[in-house]
Amino acid sequence: MTVKVINVKEDILSANDEKAKANQELMDEHHILLINVMSSPGSGKTSLIMQTISRFKAKKRIAVIEGDIASTIDADKVSKVGVPAVQINTAGGCHLEANMVRRALDSLDLDRLDLVIIENVGNLICTAEFALGAHKKVMLLSVPEGDDKPFKYPLMFTEADVVLVNKIDVAPYFDFNLAAFTKAVNGLNPKAKIMPVSAKTGEGLDAWFSWLDAELKGKKKGGN
Amino acid sequence: MTVKVINVKEDILSANDEKAKANQELMDEHHILLINVMSSPGSGKTSLIMQTISRFKAKKRIAVIEGDIASTIDADKVSKVGVPAVQINTAGGCHLEANMVRRALDSLDLDRLDLVIIENVGNLICTAEFALGAHKKVMLLSVPEGDDKPFKYPLMFTEADVVLVNKIDVAPYFDFNLAAFTKAVNGLNPKAKIMPVSAKTGEGLDAWFSWLDAELKGKKKGGN
Repeated sequence: MTVKVINVKEDILSANDEKAKANQELMDEHHILLINVMSSPGSGKTSLIMQTISRFKAKKRIAVIEGDIASTIDADKVSKVGVPAVQINTAGGCHLEANMVRRALDSLDLDRLDLVIIENVGNLICTAEFALGAHKKVMLLSVPEGDDKPFKYPLMFTEADVVLVNKIDVAPYFDFNLAAFTKAVNGLNPKAKIMPVSAKTGEGLDAWFSWLDAELKGKKKGGN
Repeated sequence: MTVKVINVKEDILSANDEKAKANQELMDEHHILLINVMSSPGSGKTSLIMQTISRFKAKKRIAVIEGDIASTIDADKVSKVGVPAVQINTAGGCHLEANMVRRALDSLDLDRLDLVIIENVGNLICTAEFALGAHKKVMLLSVPEGDDKPFKYPLMFTEADVVLVNKIDVAPYFDFNLAAFTKAVNGLNPKAKIMPVSAKTGEGLDAWFSWLDAELKGKKKGGN
């Protein structure tokens, strides 16, 4: 007699992947660039998003989807600068899933947007496992977290298109070896673009803005 | 017709709780204090543990259980100073569970130990959900992570017996309001002991050592 094995995790991930694909198709129909920003708690995701809004909002129509276990702190910040913000509270859940993002997207006026930024739950592990339909995955690793993190949390570094090394302004006060970090990331993911930045002081952000600008232009080719 | 609902998560947590209870009973039989150290990635768990070993190892017999998704970096550090270290690699799992800890405990010589320190996976969310059988839960929140974290990750702050505010040596370079943080933690968990420390410079660690010393003495009352 054969035993039926139910792989709960595989089933969940597979169902999620389909919904993620549908999210991306929806974005493509509307020529919107969708990015998924991930990091540990307190690495500077919200600060990066605020700087990005400040740089692009005169030219591009932006919305932000905020994922948190609880609170609306980040969505309130984004909303205050006049950008539509949707808060998803996961009620304990350690990551966003594609269906949660879909509900948020459905609440936005997609005909009037160029860029949707998802700020995922602060978590260097679970968030990397769940596709949301984003065109690009962006992760932050802040200097105080240490340069050994690629060895301990390999999936996130393998999945990321861009790795922003944030809080570079405080590098003199920490033992962070950027060369060793870069080598470790490249070992997992040779295509990852690594950019040292400070979302607080603005240092290094031009490289990030240029990258994002190029992605936005690519999205608009032949578009509306 | 009634529908049978399978609450996978509740079942998992309930089964885990029983195993955690058995772990604690095993520790009590051997008069060992078991503590579970949790935080975000890079908040300083390993540095705290290294300082704690350095302070206590002349008087107390210590072992460390290291939880990581991958690598043996932390277990290697602990092992180098002559303390037994067991590395648990979760292969993607975002937290330790009681059965993993039991396997590690079974590999240690429990008759020759006073203190077992578990360093959980770097994660401010999932680790708080799974009891391991520890007598005390200790969490670190490092200054660079920001003072708003209790609002965003309430369960961890609710569960912790001790909240160590680590990296206090770099507080001048960050906007961290210790009074606001303390108020937020107390709002969730009035009994939590909050201690500002630097596991790097040693600042404030005497309070932590005193607390641990008292816990170790309590454990030995009437013991072997």
